[in-house]
Amino acid sequence: MDTSYLSQLHTFYKTQLLEDTIPFWFPRSLDEQYGGFLLMRDQDGSLIDDDKAVWIQGRATWLLATLYNTVAPKQEWLDGAASGVQFLLEHCFDRAGKMYFHVARNGQPIRMRRYFFSETFAVIALAAYAKATGDEQIAQKARDLFTRCLEYSTGQTAIAPKFEPTRPAKAIGIPMIMLNTAQQLRETIGDPRCDELIKGWIAEIEKDFVKDDIRCVMEQVAPDGSIIDHIDGRTLNPGHAIEGAWFILHEASYQNSDRYLRLGLKMLDYMWERGWDQQYGGILYFLDVYGKPVQEYWQDMKFWWPQNEALIATLLAYTMTGEDKYKQWHESLRQYTEKYFHDHQHGEWFGYLHRDGSIAQTAKGNLFKGPFHLPRQQWYCMQLLSSFL
Amino acid sequence: MDTSYLSQLHTFYKTQLLEDTIPFWFPRSLDEQYGGFLLMRDQDGSLIDDDKAVWIQGRATWLLATLYNTVAPKQEWLDGAASGVQFLLEHCFDRAGKMYFHVARNGQPIRMRRYFFSETFAVIALAAYAKATGDEQIAQKARDLFTRCLEYSTGQTAIAPKFEPTRPAKAIGIPMIMLNTAQQLRETIGDPRCDELIKGWIAEIEKDFVKDDIRCVMEQVAPDGSIIDHIDGRTLNPGHAIEGAWFILHEASYQNSDRYLRLGLKMLDYMWERGWDQQYGGILYFLDVYGKPVQEYWQDMKFWWPQNEALIATLLAYTMTGEDKYKQWHESLRQYTEKYFHDHQHGEWFGYLHRDGSIAQTAKGNLFKGPFHLPRQQWYCMQLLSSFL
Repeated sequence: MDTSYLSQLHTFYKTQLLEDTIPFWFPRSLDEQYGGFLLMRDQDGSLIDDDKAVWIQGRATWLLATLYNTVAPKQEWLDGAASGVQFLLEHCFDRAGKMYFHVARNGQPIRMRRYFFSETFAVIALAAYAKATGDEQIAQKARDLFTRCLEYSTGQTAIAPKFEPTRPAKAIGIPMIMLNTAQQLRETIGDPRCDELIKGWIAEIEKDFVKDDIRCVMEQVAPDGSIIDHIDGRTLNPGHAIEGAWFILHEASYQNSDRYLRLGLKMLDYMWERGWDQQYGGILYFLDVYGKPVQEYWQDMKFWWPQNEALIATLLAYTMTGEDKYKQWHESLRQYTEKYFHDHQHGEWFGYLHRDGSIAQTAKGNLFKGPFHLPRQQWYCMQLLSSFL
Repeated sequence: MDTSYLSQLHTFYKTQLLEDTIPFWFPRSLDEQYGGFLLMRDQDGSLIDDDKAVWIQGRATWLLATLYNTVAPKQEWLDGAASGVQFLLEHCFDRAGKMYFHVARNGQPIRMRRYFFSETFAVIALAAYAKATGDEQIAQKARDLFTRCLEYSTGQTAIAPKFEPTRPAKAIGIPMIMLNTAQQLRETIGDPRCDELIKGWIAEIEKDFVKDDIRCVMEQVAPDGSIIDHIDGRTLNPGHAIEGAWFILHEASYQNSDRYLRLGLKMLDYMWERGWDQQYGGILYFLDVYGKPVQEYWQDMKFWWPQNEALIATLLAYTMTGEDKYKQWHESLRQYTEKYFHDHQHGEWFGYLHRDGSIAQTAKGNLFKGPFHLPRQQWYCMQLLSSFL
């Protein structure tokens, strides 16, 4: 293991997180009037829209509470998280207890969607805030909302389906998000259900989504794990699968499990081989498992978030194995993202590049991008590396 | 008017339609087993997926019946249209009479969506087929389905809304598609309601969506026509607005209305000024009315369909005014599309180019692309030009 390299990386990620990314978002994004955060911002930080994306409200709350819990007990971070929690609880649920996807600045609802990611991000926000404050009422709300997510994930509480029952399919996103949500719940406020649930989700991913014969992690499959030979069923999302790989590597580290280590590594290997752009660098967005055209037309663009997930996965792989291959992958990607994604003028990263690295559009925050994948990556890498100092 | 140019263009569009585009799709796409069409095809015509997009089933049926009605009474075109009509009527409606968006090859439903474009394309398919055959039962089905579209468009028959009522908005797509559907119904089998309805939709577009002060056609507005200053409300779709422009120019021609001519021309002028890519040529996909980032990240790509709509609009504008500006616009775009979109090897056009004209993905047919915008453009231009021979 190259400990001098790891030490340099630690300084790099800490500096980037605390002196570049966080100051881009805070304190300017705190909504003093209505609570929560104003996060839809252009390259220079100017506000594009004062609406609030509920995913990102939860994620920003998680980030501030997590910084408070793990980096430094700064009152401004705790106050920001408190404002996020209050906005989530007061404005982001409908009467039936389902969370909205998109609300106006004052909390009036704009859009409900037929999935439950707003809920999973609220769980980790509430859990991190409960840990920060010791507030047992908030902790119970986190556990109750996690219970609700479990019910949605099994169909015990129904969400109106987007598809007819003709061709049943399941997406890796569900066991993945539940796995990570449970990991965070366990590692902040604790929940006795988590270990067993985590075991089940990893088993499902391994059994149904990981295909050793074709060295691939599928994005969706039939309920029995078979590949659905239609456009949607064939579509791969390498950055997403690599995110799943690091959730499993994290679990391998937590449990000291060699079995999970080998699973996480092969998921990373398979999807790096498919997703890394040999011509321009960076992780491509979508691919077809058999090389046919996918439905989307922006499949060869470079988005910020797959790069962040792959930075975490490759660093975990390197620190857990010492294999030079993973160091090389991590360093290639780090240099690529510094060159193309990092906005050295205004801070933070661009979100959307063309395949060749040129900027497609300049928003730093919108309905899907905000202070999450980038600062989570910098924070996770910094924390991971601190044990090698 | 440069009649020699118009004559050359007529030959060009006729040849492209009948010797390049139509032979790409037919007869290979006729589904002899289940009826309808197998249209999801790669660059070389190989099948990517045997699912059926209901929009495109209707559009292909319309195309074949229209060719039969207006170009030549070929039995193969009529037989193809008959197969499309049968598939639409037998497999594409749910029990409540709402049409699906996406079905399997055998007609089993895959996806319902919360809008009624499948219906509008089925109306024009049924109407064109009823004209071809004189089948009064099919004609009545077309009129009844048009009635259903009217009910959806006014909310008299409700479709579950995608958005909460906090910030009401209306899209130009509704009066546009209804206007064109009514035009086609009128010009095939006739419907006494159409003239008055068309007048109302054009008045709505003019009053609420066309903004002379900023030389712009909005894609969506508040119910009173004011601009909604949020990301979605600010997002422009120049190719779509230009499609609306030619529907109105077509009406100007049909009614010999100078008022509609001036309206259609200014809509084209406004959105050509905004949408034409000065650097690379072609019509861009999305723009923000005030130059901010839009939500989509592929907004600077070049899609096949906006180019086709702009080819029709500019040719109509030129033939109706004789203004050299429109001839130049038409010819620039025609040369651009011949160079970048036309697949000279396998026929038809690519659908999805990067901003610089390089190919982003190779599908000729998928859930949204099929034998419609390109052959409709070639057919419309050919028909329009035939009166100048």
